[in-house]
Amino acid sequence: MAEPAPAPPTPRARPEEDDLLARYAATRDLTLELSWPLGPEDMVAQAIDEASPTKWHLAHTSWFFETFVLSPFLPGYRLFDPAFGFCFNSYYEAAGPRQPRPKRGLLTRPTLDRVLAFRRHVDDAVARLLEQGADEEATRRIELGLHHEQQHQELLLTDILALFAANPLRPAYRPARPRLAGGAPEPLLWLAFAGGVTPIGHGGPGFCYDNETPRHEALVAPFALADRPVANAEWLEFIADGGYETATLWLSDGWDRARSEEWRAPAYWERRDGEWLAMTLEGLAPPAPDAPVAHISFYEADAFARWAGKRLPTEYEWELAAASAPVAGNLLASGALRPQAPAAPFRRRPRQMFGDVWEWTASAHLPYPGYRPPPGAIGEYNAKFMCDQHVLRGGSCLTPAGHVRPSYRNFLYARQRWQCSGLRLAAEPR
Amino acid sequence: MAEPAPAPPTPRARPEEDDLLARYAATRDLTLELSWPLGPEDMVAQAIDEASPTKWHLAHTSWFFETFVLSPFLPGYRLFDPAFGFCFNSYYEAAGPRQPRPKRGLLTRPTLDRVLAFRRHVDDAVARLLEQGADEEATRRIELGLHHEQQHQELLLTDILALFAANPLRPAYRPARPRLAGGAPEPLLWLAFAGGVTPIGHGGPGFCYDNETPRHEALVAPFALADRPVANAEWLEFIADGGYETATLWLSDGWDRARSEEWRAPAYWERRDGEWLAMTLEGLAPPAPDAPVAHISFYEADAFARWAGKRLPTEYEWELAAASAPVAGNLLASGALRPQAPAAPFRRRPRQMFGDVWEWTASAHLPYPGYRPPPGAIGEYNAKFMCDQHVLRGGSCLTPAGHVRPSYRNFLYARQRWQCSGLRLAAEPR
Amino acid sequence: MAEPAPAPPTPRARPEEDDLLARYAATRDLTLELSWPLGPEDMVAQAIDEASPTKWHLAHTSWFFETFVLSPFLPGYRLFDPAFGFCFNSYYEAAGPRQPRPKRGLLTRPTLDRVLAFRRHVDDAVARLLEQGADEEATRRIELGLHHEQQHQELLLTDILALFAANPLRPAYRPARPRLAGGAPEPLLWLAFAGGVTPIGHGGPGFCYDNETPRHEALVAPFALADRPVANAEWLEFIADGGYETATLWLSDGWDRARSEEWRAPAYWERRDGEWLAMTLEGLAPPAPDAPVAHISFYEADAFARWAGKRLPTEYEWELAAASAPVAGNLLASGALRPQAPAAPFRRRPRQMFGDVWEWTASAHLPYPGYRPPPGAIGEYNAKFMCDQHVLRGGSCLTPAGHVRPSYRNFLYARQRWQCSGLRLAAEPR
Amino acid sequence: MAEPAPAPPTPRARPEEDDLLARYAATRDLTLELSWPLGPEDMVAQAIDEASPTKWHLAHTSWFFETFVLSPFLPGYRLFDPAFGFCFNSYYEAAGPRQPRPKRGLLTRPTLDRVLAFRRHVDDAVARLLEQGADEEATRRIELGLHHEQQHQELLLTDILALFAANPLRPAYRPARPRLAGGAPEPLLWLAFAGGVTPIGHGGPGFCYDNETPRHEALVAPFALADRPVANAEWLEFIADGGYETATLWLSDGWDRARSEEWRAPAYWERRDGEWLAMTLEGLAPPAPDAPVAHISFYEADAFARWAGKRLPTEYEWELAAASAPVAGNLLASGALRPQAPAAPFRRRPRQMFGDVWEWTASAHLPYPGYRPPPGAIGEYNAKFMCDQHVLRGGSCLTPAGHVRPSYRNFLYARQRWQCSGLRLAAEPR
Repeated sequence: MAEPAPAPPTPRARPEEDDLLARYAATRDLTLELSWPLGPEDMVAQAIDEASPTKWHLAHTSWFFETFVLSPFLPGYRLFDPAFGFCFNSYYEAAGPRQPRPKRGLLTRPTLDRVLAFRRHVDDAVARLLEQGADEEATRRIELGLHHEQQHQELLLTDILALFAANPLRPAYRPARPRLAGGAPEPLLWLAFAGGVTPIGHGGPGFCYDNETPRHEALVAPFALADRPVANAEWLEFIADGGYETATLWLSDGWDRARSEEWRAPAYWERRDGEWLAMTLEGLAPPAPDAPVAHISFYEADAFARWAGKRLPTEYEWELAAASAPVAGNLLASGALRPQAPAAPFRRRPRQMFGDVWEWTASAHLPYPGYRPPPGAIGEYNAKFMCDQHVLRGGSCLTPAGHVRPSYRNFLYARQRWQCSGLRLAAEPR
Repeated sequence: MAEPAPAPPTPRARPEEDDLLARYAATRDLTLELSWPLGPEDMVAQAIDEASPTKWHLAHTSWFFETFVLSPFLPGYRLFDPAFGFCFNSYYEAAGPRQPRPKRGLLTRPTLDRVLAFRRHVDDAVARLLEQGADEEATRRIELGLHHEQQHQELLLTDILALFAANPLRPAYRPARPRLAGGAPEPLLWLAFAGGVTPIGHGGPGFCYDNETPRHEALVAPFALADRPVANAEWLEFIADGGYETATLWLSDGWDRARSEEWRAPAYWERRDGEWLAMTLEGLAPPAPDAPVAHISFYEADAFARWAGKRLPTEYEWELAAASAPVAGNLLASGALRPQAPAAPFRRRPRQMFGDVWEWTASAHLPYPGYRPPPGAIGEYNAKFMCDQHVLRGGSCLTPAGHVRPSYRNFLYARQRWQCSGLRLAAEPR
Repeated sequence: MAEPAPAPPTPRARPEEDDLLARYAATRDLTLELSWPLGPEDMVAQAIDEASPTKWHLAHTSWFFETFVLSPFLPGYRLFDPAFGFCFNSYYEAAGPRQPRPKRGLLTRPTLDRVLAFRRHVDDAVARLLEQGADEEATRRIELGLHHEQQHQELLLTDILALFAANPLRPAYRPARPRLAGGAPEPLLWLAFAGGVTPIGHGGPGFCYDNETPRHEALVAPFALADRPVANAEWLEFIADGGYETATLWLSDGWDRARSEEWRAPAYWERRDGEWLAMTLEGLAPPAPDAPVAHISFYEADAFARWAGKRLPTEYEWELAAASAPVAGNLLASGALRPQAPAAPFRRRPRQMFGDVWEWTASAHLPYPGYRPPPGAIGEYNAKFMCDQHVLRGGSCLTPAGHVRPSYRNFLYARQRWQCSGLRLAAEPR
Repeated sequence: MAEPAPAPPTPRARPEEDDLLARYAATRDLTLELSWPLGPEDMVAQAIDEASPTKWHLAHTSWFFETFVLSPFLPGYRLFDPAFGFCFNSYYEAAGPRQPRPKRGLLTRPTLDRVLAFRRHVDDAVARLLEQGADEEATRRIELGLHHEQQHQELLLTDILALFAANPLRPAYRPARPRLAGGAPEPLLWLAFAGGVTPIGHGGPGFCYDNETPRHEALVAPFALADRPVANAEWLEFIADGGYETATLWLSDGWDRARSEEWRAPAYWERRDGEWLAMTLEGLAPPAPDAPVAHISFYEADAFARWAGKRLPTEYEWELAAASAPVAGNLLASGALRPQAPAAPFRRRPRQMFGDVWEWTASAHLPYPGYRPPPGAIGEYNAKFMCDQHVLRGGSCLTPAGHVRPSYRNFLYARQRWQCSGLRLAAEPR
């Protein structure tokens, strides 16, 4: 099965692992399916500088294939429209000038129709290239393009949520599905890890991003890790205890930010008639007490951990703990579209390491020892963001299946909240 | 004839001057017609804080009738959607909270379909009210609503131009029509006016805005006025002579603004291959030498006048001069959609007083002696903007016919350029 | 008598009206005397962008004489230090580049000692020029320089107040003098004026600024004017009645400003133990109920007038009313350094037209009909600020005697509050 | 010898290592000595938000002893002035509200005289406490206060440099001393380190900050390190090769910053008559080719390393390499007050590890494994800045002797340039 779309599902045969064209088609289809619940108007607007319009995601992912695969590797390929480079280049300095990031929402033209034609044009050409036989580098670039597209699938959803959360009508991306009322979360269990010299970074045969390399050894001290992420009920205790008003719990920059932006709760939470509601892709709903808290900044995660007398795990600790966990969970394919209480009752093992919420770690996004970015524009993919950002691990309920892995390093600025980000506590061993 | 739309025209019988319903229908239809060349996507985006999306204009003008006419005057009227007040209130404090102005472009919902339904709902109700017989105040409010709608017709076009000018594709609102190549402008003629004690403000029986009242006497000294606005060819001389780089020509605030925003020419002008092009509703085109310059700020108008050794006229001088001019010219009904060279060869009289470009005057937008704003929310229409703005007179090529009059006072901040604003020179008499 | 300084007073013979050197000496001395209560440290800092350090005032006024009098008119004059032009030019584009205005507080060098030497150097040279016999233009420039210096005397005091008000210690510029406790203000009387065609602008033989010219006729409608400015007790009623929280009382820009800067009372007022205190040059003190309110913006003055059902006078009305009033009152020479209750019991005539507080008028700072700025850099004195500022009339308790006159036009941005600005109400006649 | 002051030197007996009072006196004296070349005016102003006025440094360091030592530990201690807490608290939330950081330059009061009296008051009380016998915690706090004071000694100098660099007169802190003209730098040597599991963090008996603890083991891969920092001559090559204009050399945030702040060279460099000059504490001077480059941001350091095909060392690598180096070099005690060419010809060992310039490392300022901040307000000293800052190592030519050590972790934001910061290259071993 390719990622089943949360929207109108269509059964499809499972693409062979090695059938790149089938995987290409399935991935590209999923992006479109994710956009189905939206009208053309919804696809134009940009809620915040960090987010992008749906239409822009549809076009940019195609521009990626055009620029890095088709132009260099498909003989005789003709650009769909030479002006699109300016419109849909995200941040590749080596690929030329571009629309300023905060003004992507002004691109009412090209219209959606034309962007969809651009997608078809690119898809046809990639198919042609694959049928002709792509060389090793071209194949590697297509593979990269598919993982890039998956990242934008998640962004498409988080960006629509940001847009709809800023709309006074609080519209839903899709109708709400029936859900069990959540109860109190199960008590947190602490799992002890012995640490030691451990391999870190991508080791297997499959795809990985350059920032997961090179695989190297690291010395990890013994540590304890919570068996699940922090739940909404626990976050409400933090709020009730004055967590957002207690300066000494916060990093200095975090406190300043929380003051200037008047944070009182996670992003998208609002108080109506004395009750907290959270904006979700299904509209406003009370946060389930036993589901992981989401849409928090690193600053909030860090303040919560300090309030709880704990800390955040390092990315090395997290990766070591994840090594034994199955890469499965509440990912996009579950169709839940929001974090959920842990389904599985298996105790004494880390749960919800994958899916539900990206987990902030204590680690900065820095190059691994011996890291070298790939040559050319592709080298800008991750390398130029290796400063002042923080690593998150594990994927979220909006991450496409097959996209995440134990060595996967997501990264965000400490202040950012529009991604589906939560936290898991760590501590020194007793 | 109602305002003939520049887009697909439909012949219609001329509404009787006293047939309010027919005028209502014609005015409301024109707004829709102006939106026809646009797709739903184009109608969502907001190019700059001062501009609004087309869809917002369509909805706000309907909200105006609903709020100020239907709710108070049509018994049993039901709001189309109670949430629309928040979405589409522009600035009326007395009418409750509202979407922040710079975030109108995030209102992808309600969708265009629903906004069009809103318009029909309001139109039906207004028709019902008029058929039942509206009382004097209700009639006055409907009349106000129609003039309000006409203002938004012009804004709809200026705001689309701002959006398309910010789009890297520079799309056209409509295909370019064949035009004569412009030649050098005719020499400026100076017309002498004797001045004296003159009545100022609206005097006749027809509609006017509150800021045109009360009619009062003013003492105007003798003055001279140019027979036509400043033309593009003259503006190019100003540029060539270093007008944008000569501090002593500028007001202090204007110079600071011109530096910080890097003004080198009117808004929407850009240099390609050594030639100036101006963005218009028909796309990029070279500015016609003999057409009035447009899209300049008050600061630029004032600097040009100083460079020319002249000055801007006061609004009293302008109104005195306009008293003898026919209220006709290159208005929206001409379908030109841009300023044009003076058509009429009549000499020794002011030409192009109406239409083509709004003319910056030397006057601040202040209340006339004895002015009193209307009671209630309607009192916010103009009164609360009587500070730090400047009066423009005469209408532009985007102003609906029947909207402008000699006493009409438009007003903008000195820095604003996105309206179709130009200038006419004045001087002391010899 | 020259302006008696509020600080250590030194008896001096009265300079002959026509003895320019004596007036020069007296004026220059007063500036120094005003700085006596301050230490060198106090003279360095700049509280807000609009204010300047005392040391800068001392130097800039000397630079003015050096640049506009000595360099062009004293043969063989040598600049005290060529680098001072950059440091102490305020805003004259024609006089070259300069220290950015908001960074005047970084000029710890040149030190005060050197600035005082600069003053002596300039004073000696001016004396030399006068003894040699200055020609007509040089004499006119020296006269201008003295009036310029007087403006900076007032600014020196308002800027020190801004600095000390921003200091957590709330230091006093001088020790508090004993004062009578103020009582309730006397009831406001309304004085009727018939209006008519009246001469406006400077007419007499003495000095005036270019913005008071040319004298011209204006038509003023009948009006009523309050016999005194609005008093603190009345302002407290405005506060108590929710004046600062009622949007419909405010101009649109004023309301936005009042929200963003959290205005709840005039500038420098703070609430301690349930009581309002105002920061003054004598430190924190309760505002006297019967003294004029001070340190309000145009926006507040306008909102108050609307709340009171009145309006602000135009500058023409004010000048007409002031024509019959003696140019005397609580000016700097009184030594009070703050607005006071009206001393004189003369009824049925305007009181406190001069001194106490600058009175905001309804008029924008625009050129008079036929106005022409002087040629050269001096033309920048007022002309380039004839936009987006508002006229105040009458002088304040910090204005040097002899500086103000009925035709004097001060001007500020509507948002500014650091000057000693208040208001007087006007109304239509019954 | 206590730290010999660069200014008027006074021979003093060497305080016994264990004589805390003597060390207290010597440290406090040095702060004063550093302020001697400055007038009271110079001590008031704040050049940039990150810097502080000299007077503020003098007072804040005293406030530190008063608040954290005297109030809690000296029975009967009376605050010098209760208002000083507000004025001179830097950032301790637990110690109450405070003057906003960017407004420290407005504190013309308390005057310098009073601040010096405050210092004496505190010094007397500390002496009394020490004579009475301070307990262990009080002693520890005094020790902390001395190291804190040393940090402010360096800041006092960097902040004065920032102030004088912003002054159009470019004044010198002290007269220039004769110097040898620098020649080309000696070729860089690469030193190989084997890495391995190595202890990191403070281990010895002496003082350290909490962020150097706990000492822990880390696994360091083999690496190569340059024997000296990058020199000015090398930086000029980077400039000449377009380093500041080549986007692909830069981190994304760094590129944006370099554009918006128009970086073309290190801070304080300016081009006059075709030659680069650098502002120093001795005024403008050409940068010595063989001296380490200083006043660069992390972004610039990183871009340079990429341009050179190398990288920055991690702080672990740096600490490992520094373990064998003597803690000596061009520190404040040398009196040079600027980076110098390496004096010692010892080859095959790291040179200039201490002094000259703080060296940017590749490491973020994060807590060490098992780190716990001290309880109470002292816990805010470093802990709340463990986010989004970068570690620098080794001290500079402005660092007091005895202040720095191999485990010392300084930290700054990546964009900051006003400290004496440079870089040393690292690389993978061949």
